[in-house]
Amino acid sequence: MGVSTITVSRAFGRPDKVSEDLRRRIQQAADDLGYVRNRAASALASNRSMNIAVLVPSLSNSVFVDTVTGIEKVFRAHGYQMLMGVNHYSAEEEEALVRAYLAFAPDGMLLTGFNYREATRQLIDQAGIPIVHMMELSDREGTYSVGFSQEAAAQAMTEHLLAKGHRRIAFVASQLDPRTLARNRGYRDTIIKAGLYESHREVLVPDQSSVALGAALLRRLLEQAPDTDAVFFCNDDLAQGALFECLRRGIQVPNQLAVAGFNDLPMSECSVPSLTTIATPRYDIGVQSAHMLLALIEGQTVPRKTIDLGFQLRARESA
Amino acid sequence: MGVSTITVSRAFGRPDKVSEDLRRRIQQAADDLGYVRNRAASALASNRSMNIAVLVPSLSNSVFVDTVTGIEKVFRAHGYQMLMGVNHYSAEEEEALVRAYLAFAPDGMLLTGFNYREATRQLIDQAGIPIVHMMELSDREGTYSVGFSQEAAAQAMTEHLLAKGHRRIAFVASQLDPRTLARNRGYRDTIIKAGLYESHREVLVPDQSSVALGAALLRRLLEQAPDTDAVFFCNDDLAQGALFECLRRGIQVPNQLAVAGFNDLPMSECSVPSLTTIATPRYDIGVQSAHMLLALIEGQTVPRKTIDLGFQLRARESA
Repeated sequence: MGVSTITVSRAFGRPDKVSEDLRRRIQQAADDLGYVRNRAASALASNRSMNIAVLVPSLSNSVFVDTVTGIEKVFRAHGYQMLMGVNHYSAEEEEALVRAYLAFAPDGMLLTGFNYREATRQLIDQAGIPIVHMMELSDREGTYSVGFSQEAAAQAMTEHLLAKGHRRIAFVASQLDPRTLARNRGYRDTIIKAGLYESHREVLVPDQSSVALGAALLRRLLEQAPDTDAVFFCNDDLAQGALFECLRRGIQVPNQLAVAGFNDLPMSECSVPSLTTIATPRYDIGVQSAHMLLALIEGQTVPRKTIDLGFQLRARESA
Repeated sequence: MGVSTITVSRAFGRPDKVSEDLRRRIQQAADDLGYVRNRAASALASNRSMNIAVLVPSLSNSVFVDTVTGIEKVFRAHGYQMLMGVNHYSAEEEEALVRAYLAFAPDGMLLTGFNYREATRQLIDQAGIPIVHMMELSDREGTYSVGFSQEAAAQAMTEHLLAKGHRRIAFVASQLDPRTLARNRGYRDTIIKAGLYESHREVLVPDQSSVALGAALLRRLLEQAPDTDAVFFCNDDLAQGALFECLRRGIQVPNQLAVAGFNDLPMSECSVPSLTTIATPRYDIGVQSAHMLLALIEGQTVPRKTIDLGFQLRARESA
């Protein structure tokens, strides 16, 4: 072959650093020899494990699946393996997962939000590895984050409903994780400023979000506040359930009741009626977080510690 | 503490092998010492990497998310780390992932289906680690599988539509992975046996499934076969899109057109109308596959090499 060990090593570990042709020749020779790289040996040689731990709260809706897809694409291109954990929106499970993952000596970690326990923070600090936080933003000294302002997005949707002439605007949420509560603040600040806040138009429950729950929460809202003219749901799953409930009851959307969601799931564009919602940059959050973490692992300077990727309001038929 | 090294080691690596109280005391002592297990050292000592590789075709619908959730629950309880890869329904990507994961020296592997390349099979054979196949079943000598009969499930749905009096029953599918094609065979065999097969009532496209695609495929079907009285979609995403399209066009479901799906996604129970579909044991497939693989890794005899977990037809409003 006439190729040095370091080049072969690079061809596998950093495929971007060698030419495509050379990479292919090395791969072919390796295939012919039945060669499979021993990752443990590479890890010893480079003092890197080539593992990166990623913690997300859930995979049961497509929000975090999109984020993880973006992360995985970047890591795989750089020869890193992703250790992925799901903490089910629990700070306790998160701590257990961080503890478990540190045993694999990851080179870095991606966490969702900033809601972790003090013990989790200590574990991470002791490990001395870089961390990037996804989804939420923070100006705190020494923290790295990629996301968007949940509050600003919720303000934009509430202002949209006000601009459409609605005056009895409700907010309905489940799960109540920090991002959901930030959306609630965005709604509440805006509606208070407009002089239209009424506490019985807020329905907040800790249950896991689902389409079925959205239907149930709309029923509950309409019992306690029957003259509501618009509902802002904290996510599209709940909003979709509400649209089904309106169909079932013959409530005209948006004429009798406007319905808005959050996230812009694939279905929201083609439901009947189509759903007005906030498109979130969840795939890009994955890609940019992964790039930021790789830069930190490689000791590069990171130009911005906080990357705000923004959001887009998609005004469709339902509101 | 007065506890042997092997007990401490067990408390972390095999938490099921020590009492809950002892496990908690050891964990507490370890926490106090700021102890984090070095997984690489454990791996060297036990000659196990404690990694298990899991390959699924997609995470963008909840089918495989449920399966992975079941797998992760079992592995985590036994101290194993899951290396998860998504091959996007591509045998080529699957081969690349298997190659990449073998470098982490996994103790075993879970694969989806049997559709892999010859090169992938050789890699796995050379690695000499146990494999369990998920979703599909096989009687092939020396193979282990946990799933259900895709064909039998599709036959059951087609027979249900026949029993409801439908005679112009269409089949619509996308993605065309081996499981989708098995469902097509189940439909076709049943409808041929009933003497009702007409080729223009089959619409098969290779595109990725989505709710929006279901609406588009229903439009296409009704152009080429407008007198169709029932449609069996290969999954619930497509069927949901078709229900939206019927709403948009004012087509009465099931009176003018019956609609059936496959998978029983969470939304299918509460859509309007609710969707008749096949409930698949995807979470249990994850749990049982993981248990079978752990037994093989530990050298235990496995009583059944093929576990058929069956399916359930959920007859609801749409068909």
